[in-house]
Amino acid sequence: MTRQELIAQIKKKKSFLTVGLDTDIKKIPQHLLTFDDPVFEFNKQIIDATKDLCVSYKINTAFYECRGLAGWQSLVKTANYLPKDIFSIADAKRGDIGNTSAMYADAFFSQADSGMSFDSVTVAPYMGKDSVSPFLKFQNKWVILLALTSNEGAKDFQFLKNEESLLFESVLQKSQEWASNEQMMYVVGATRGDAFLQIRKHAPNHFLLVPGVGAQGGSLGDVCQYGITKDCGLLVNSSRAIIYASSGEDFAQAARAEAQKVQQQMAKELEKIGF
Amino acid sequence: MTRQELIAQIKKKKSFLTVGLDTDIKKIPQHLLTFDDPVFEFNKQIIDATKDLCVSYKINTAFYECRGLAGWQSLVKTANYLPKDIFSIADAKRGDIGNTSAMYADAFFSQADSGMSFDSVTVAPYMGKDSVSPFLKFQNKWVILLALTSNEGAKDFQFLKNEESLLFESVLQKSQEWASNEQMMYVVGATRGDAFLQIRKHAPNHFLLVPGVGAQGGSLGDVCQYGITKDCGLLVNSSRAIIYASSGEDFAQAARAEAQKVQQQMAKELEKIGF
Repeated sequence: MTRQELIAQIKKKKSFLTVGLDTDIKKIPQHLLTFDDPVFEFNKQIIDATKDLCVSYKINTAFYECRGLAGWQSLVKTANYLPKDIFSIADAKRGDIGNTSAMYADAFFSQADSGMSFDSVTVAPYMGKDSVSPFLKFQNKWVILLALTSNEGAKDFQFLKNEESLLFESVLQKSQEWASNEQMMYVVGATRGDAFLQIRKHAPNHFLLVPGVGAQGGSLGDVCQYGITKDCGLLVNSSRAIIYASSGEDFAQAARAEAQKVQQQMAKELEKIGF
Repeated sequence: MTRQELIAQIKKKKSFLTVGLDTDIKKIPQHLLTFDDPVFEFNKQIIDATKDLCVSYKINTAFYECRGLAGWQSLVKTANYLPKDIFSIADAKRGDIGNTSAMYADAFFSQADSGMSFDSVTVAPYMGKDSVSPFLKFQNKWVILLALTSNEGAKDFQFLKNEESLLFESVLQKSQEWASNEQMMYVVGATRGDAFLQIRKHAPNHFLLVPGVGAQGGSLGDVCQYGITKDCGLLVNSSRAIIYASSGEDFAQAARAEAQKVQQQMAKELEKIGF
């Protein structure tokens, strides 16, 4: 998907919501357990119930890998069920030496090789340029690079101050030599609203994938105040708060209601900037 | 596996060789393609031919994921074929926020959940303590944390100088607050022989997993000169040079011959330190 297509979708839906499919088989409604693939059935119903309210789905691969082969099967089926006009994110946090990253790129981008073709994948920056660049060889596919993450451990290394800047700022600066904002986004955790000021100094126009709103405690208002751009420039993820809104048979409607609440807040934020 | 068991194995086999199962279906001998699962058949024969010469097998998950469901199947089968008395490494470079890292830990450590139980997994440090600690909750399982990697891109961030040290040194220092050398190792690329001096300043007794000998250009002599400890303290990985030693029907014998060459060099290095 191109940047223009993504922006057009945000305009149309008045939403920059990413629904995170962090689907834990232990947390889905009991009645689904009679299905052949309960996780896929859950995802299918969540997708059907929310697809007009969000512009992106994010699949956290860990939740699938932990169930081994059965989980990988649910992952592939879910990936292929995602509507093609919605931006899809493999939240996989991959990254390795060049020839290995090329294999990971095939895993998430090459339908012919792996049976899956996401629009984007999250990548860890520690191993530098050649660990990232193989993902950039695919046309209209994106790298979403970890910059400032939403977790407690973010403070361990990401705020280390080097000669010119903090580590996450170096990641933002350096990585812009590798790709433009047509092919690179950044992960920036919502748990640090005012950090968006600093992020926008280094990446004024990039789209940011923002986890941490909702269950992790971040506020949508803060994120928008400091992070929104004239093109919106935000994809705000909500996982648990939406997909586990109800544990009963009405889980999909409850997820829809929750997504709608967020979408309506987002519509207001977009209105403020005349988008 | 405990540290003592690993050391005993190195003593017995006079080897600290890790064979990397970076098995690319495009590179394996043609005659294997008639098997149901050619990659597993290849791995099986490589394992049978080398298991008395190495102390560890490292499975690079990217090479399996890129083939989708079929690849994950080969991964699970290979993981379960690894001899239990040999140290097994899931070279997966994972790491995410705490609840997600816990899922990755299940994926690679919990036989009951995922059908696989490796002795260790490689983890990227960028997201800090809570991205690493869920892996440490499993008894006698190891985290192998990326410190100084073997690729060109290592220079992008790992050498950034902060107030006290370079980033990879901060990773070495900080992470020792999270686990002892009974449960943590580090990845240190062999392409920088003399960097081992610096590594040993911060981690004098830890085992180091060393990729980059062979195809990537590192020298075993340099690694030993600067990196070996009284307990050996090294697991040196060789992938391509061993597993693709021949592309014919004799690939397993050729792999064995290549592994034996490396093992004999290693025996000499161990003799030098009277191990």
